[in-house]
Amino acid sequence: MRLARFRLPTGAPAFGVVEGEVVARLDRRISSFEALLGDPVGAHPADERIPVDQVTWEPPMREHAKILCVGMNYAAHARESGREVPARPTLFTRFPDSVVGAGTPVVRPAGEESLDWEGEAAIVIGRSGRRIAEGQAWSHVAGVTCMAENSVRDWQAHSVQATAGKNWAGSGALGPWLTTLDEIGRGPWRVTTRLNGEQAQDDTTANLVFDVPRLVAYVSTFTPLRAGDVIATGTPKGIGLRRRPPRFLRPGDQLEVEVHGVGVLRHGVVDEPVAAEVGGAR
Amino acid sequence: MRLARFRLPTGAPAFGVVEGEVVARLDRRISSFEALLGDPVGAHPADERIPVDQVTWEPPMREHAKILCVGMNYAAHARESGREVPARPTLFTRFPDSVVGAGTPVVRPAGEESLDWEGEAAIVIGRSGRRIAEGQAWSHVAGVTCMAENSVRDWQAHSVQATAGKNWAGSGALGPWLTTLDEIGRGPWRVTTRLNGEQAQDDTTANLVFDVPRLVAYVSTFTPLRAGDVIATGTPKGIGLRRRPPRFLRPGDQLEVEVHGVGVLRHGVVDEPVAAEVGGAR
Repeated sequence: MRLARFRLPTGAPAFGVVEGEVVARLDRRISSFEALLGDPVGAHPADERIPVDQVTWEPPMREHAKILCVGMNYAAHARESGREVPARPTLFTRFPDSVVGAGTPVVRPAGEESLDWEGEAAIVIGRSGRRIAEGQAWSHVAGVTCMAENSVRDWQAHSVQATAGKNWAGSGALGPWLTTLDEIGRGPWRVTTRLNGEQAQDDTTANLVFDVPRLVAYVSTFTPLRAGDVIATGTPKGIGLRRRPPRFLRPGDQLEVEVHGVGVLRHGVVDEPVAAEVGGAR
Repeated sequence: MRLARFRLPTGAPAFGVVEGEVVARLDRRISSFEALLGDPVGAHPADERIPVDQVTWEPPMREHAKILCVGMNYAAHARESGREVPARPTLFTRFPDSVVGAGTPVVRPAGEESLDWEGEAAIVIGRSGRRIAEGQAWSHVAGVTCMAENSVRDWQAHSVQATAGKNWAGSGALGPWLTTLDEIGRGPWRVTTRLNGEQAQDDTTANLVFDVPRLVAYVSTFTPLRAGDVIATGTPKGIGLRRRPPRFLRPGDQLEVEVHGVGVLRHGVVDEPVAAEVGGAR
């Protein structure tokens, strides 16, 4: 089952189940996307069916999601970055407004040319919990989605903390939907990133240093996880920064992140409108 | 003017202006705490006055605040930590549920003994903006509050990223209120941390490596700031980790963080209830 958040042609927010080329809308029947994540099987029948090409995807997470990302979680990527394989997960966070839904172009910051791709498999929490045991972790996962966990490398390098490179407004993407575990299984999942149709990253979550149960257990040790929160499992080798010369995202590019069996997250790239100071921003 | 969020004796959320020993409640007159932050002068008169000892303080921020914290922002603290003074702000984030209001005890994690204090001055945004120029930064700041930006040192040391040490549920505190800039001015502000009445940290924001306008400008370059968001300016030297032997927070301790002219944030310490797995957590 593919669960999605989206906007109707009117701009109104909605959510539901993606069935082939239509979305079965469930937001009138179920109180929230989080409630749907917690009990997807009881979700049918739907109120209304809308062709997918008439909706605008939103990230399949709760509005104020905790988004935790794992750095250096593929040994080969750690090596390409000159780092040792870590003993504990290396975690950073993204604000929800740093990601857009599938199909919406990501924003290359004005004056910055180092926007890089990071294709990842991300899990979405379905059942809330704290101090979740590894053996119970899968029961807290609603499903799997695709993440373009894009980074502004020059700002990521400003300090040892990744925050400033990982939180540019609208720089990353999540979606288009999450596929529930009963359909996708517990993996390993193959993750492929394509830049303008050409493969850039390709690996499977079998090669994660810290697997999903370990990540869910580790993160929930210190912070409560709620339905709709996101853990991005890390990116394989093949980022643009490591090419010689480096190759960064620019307008005209089309990025695809495919988690095989889940779907394909596609996004273009636009330049940020130049403005000296933007008041009243969200 | 002292602006605060709090809970009534019934548990209901409210906000208003603190006037000596009473809180003038404004939540029936003004749509949100964020609206109050944006226009505090027009806030009076109030609907109802409540003795401060009858309310429970909540952190003076918006519910889903972005909380950005700056590491190594006092040169003397950077030296005690064996770090060089950085060229750019070192930023990490805290989830809103990692801080409690003044007077509520912070939680020492079960099985962890390295909960350390970090007294700080924090600013609260009053006017939203993106790419705010340094010269305009003060006009976006509503006021100043006290932060106990407490850290679980053993988890902070798990990786190069601070996330896991900085986001333990209820481990830090913010408040009790923010004092508006027209009253507190633009600093420098003196920040004093006391453990059980004894001074542990004492410095002024004159010694910040990156001052408030620089931080507001830097952060808002990449992420929109909204009324009710928080930037913690960093902690002076004198953390427990650097004592010989180290001295960490434990039940029975009373911590005070005073930003002189703003107020005093006081909190105790309680041990986390032990439970194998907590389902349905927030």
